[in-house]
Amino acid sequence: MATKRIFGEISGVSEGFLFSSYVELNQSKVHIQTQAGISGSQSEGADSIVVSGGYEDDQDFGDEIIYTGHGGRKDGKQISDQTLTRGNLALAKNEIDNLPVRVIRGAHKGNLFAPEVGYRYDGLYRVESHWIELGKSGFNVYRFKLVKQNSSLPPISVKAAQIDIEQKHGSNNPRRVSSTVQRVIRDSKLGRQLKKLYDYKCQVCELQINTEAGFYAEAAHIKPVGAPHNGPDLLENLLCLCPNHHLMFDKGVFCLDDRFNLIGVDGRLYLNPKHDVSKEFLNYHRSMFGKL
Amino acid sequence: MATKRIFGEISGVSEGFLFSSYVELNQSKVHIQTQAGISGSQSEGADSIVVSGGYEDDQDFGDEIIYTGHGGRKDGKQISDQTLTRGNLALAKNEIDNLPVRVIRGAHKGNLFAPEVGYRYDGLYRVESHWIELGKSGFNVYRFKLVKQNSSLPPISVKAAQIDIEQKHGSNNPRRVSSTVQRVIRDSKLGRQLKKLYDYKCQVCELQINTEAGFYAEAAHIKPVGAPHNGPDLLENLLCLCPNHHLMFDKGVFCLDDRFNLIGVDGRLYLNPKHDVSKEFLNYHRSMFGKL
Repeated sequence: MATKRIFGEISGVSEGFLFSSYVELNQSKVHIQTQAGISGSQSEGADSIVVSGGYEDDQDFGDEIIYTGHGGRKDGKQISDQTLTRGNLALAKNEIDNLPVRVIRGAHKGNLFAPEVGYRYDGLYRVESHWIELGKSGFNVYRFKLVKQNSSLPPISVKAAQIDIEQKHGSNNPRRVSSTVQRVIRDSKLGRQLKKLYDYKCQVCELQINTEAGFYAEAAHIKPVGAPHNGPDLLENLLCLCPNHHLMFDKGVFCLDDRFNLIGVDGRLYLNPKHDVSKEFLNYHRSMFGKL
Repeated sequence: MATKRIFGEISGVSEGFLFSSYVELNQSKVHIQTQAGISGSQSEGADSIVVSGGYEDDQDFGDEIIYTGHGGRKDGKQISDQTLTRGNLALAKNEIDNLPVRVIRGAHKGNLFAPEVGYRYDGLYRVESHWIELGKSGFNVYRFKLVKQNSSLPPISVKAAQIDIEQKHGSNNPRRVSSTVQRVIRDSKLGRQLKKLYDYKCQVCELQINTEAGFYAEAAHIKPVGAPHNGPDLLENLLCLCPNHHLMFDKGVFCLDDRFNLIGVDGRLYLNPKHDVSKEFLNYHRSMFGKL
């Protein structure tokens, strides 16, 4: 019988807990795999991963990890492109369903955040985004940006934050059973300038959301801001979108070609002549989702 | 000539800075009003507010403030309903446009977070939400939930975070000119259960967003979770919505009557017989936006 997949904290295992081996990780239910770095299924999501330096493209910044997906390797070398299947698809499922993933760091050289020996449970991360990238090997790899969940829960509730896939009922105290995902929406004078240019209408569907305090729209970055993409906050890197098309653009449901036709869904981007959208950044966005 | 309205930090004024009077606040440009608690305009938003205990309904939790709007008062007593105009509308504009508001606390009894004397600049807050509430006086007042912006910027950048309404250009370093708003999206086993019940289709428009990792929808709370509403995480308090209708529901663009017709826009809520939506919570949501 397969071990039940538990999302969230494992009762009795607090952050910083050390394990000597995969066998111990398995027995404690922290990582129910005996070899693979990603524990998860395509339909449920990934419950835990081990960061152990197996992939040359991993980058560890502590509270942020750029994690490389699995597949396409033989004898420790990348020999073909990775695909969005198995563990990779499981991690992408976490992103869509706001599921937390347990991160375990294994000892390995060159990583400041890894333990000196064994495996350390390092808490819950959310999968903020994923994209395709040309790895050092010359083959396409999937990359996942993991961000540590800043729990504002009092210490006593941390154990109770466990999200059990078998859990049947809700609670009158949502803080205890919810995983919380924070979607960061940046705004600025530039964003307002852009929105005014389009009269707060979505550049894809022309929806204009009218609230009692005025119109609402979102300024979406084409090349994402923040590490590792570090797109700039410039008008040419921004689109004025409704929340739906912002989400769909960020998740790669659609991309844009150089003539501003939508790829993935029917349609065409509305453009104000004063708005010079960068084709370089559109190309970057397409490459993130393999739509070159 | 009117003083230019500056959103964000005032150069040279760091958090904790003390002022002796409104005149000093005015001269330093921290609060460019001579008497009113809210500095702002309907079209631009509110640049600063003073929390000084003038309203019996204010609640100060430090990093969160439940701030009462202005209007409807005479000789320090609430004598009529407040309306979403002037300073109140300015604060609602901040909410929609993701503009930060400077918070200044004035000395007053009974508030643990107020200074002992004078006025203290306490940093930038974002306006998370607003709603109507029956105040202690028996009249309707507007209430604003303000949440402190957690700046993850290094100290040296804090001054540079100033957002000047007159600022003309963007930047290659978005962290320095952006105000960041974090929209909290909770999810849980319950949320997944709900979404599966509706096959990830929006209960208002039936949109089903199909990403490469599966369908995407959002679980929206009818009575908001978190203080001061403290709605429960129960199926009867949840709706399965697309991002657009989630945003519109949260901002009161539409409400629902007891027969599940939409108020504010045309339409009717799709309901699965297994989903027992609470009329009590629908009523609470309507009351928040004066749609009783």
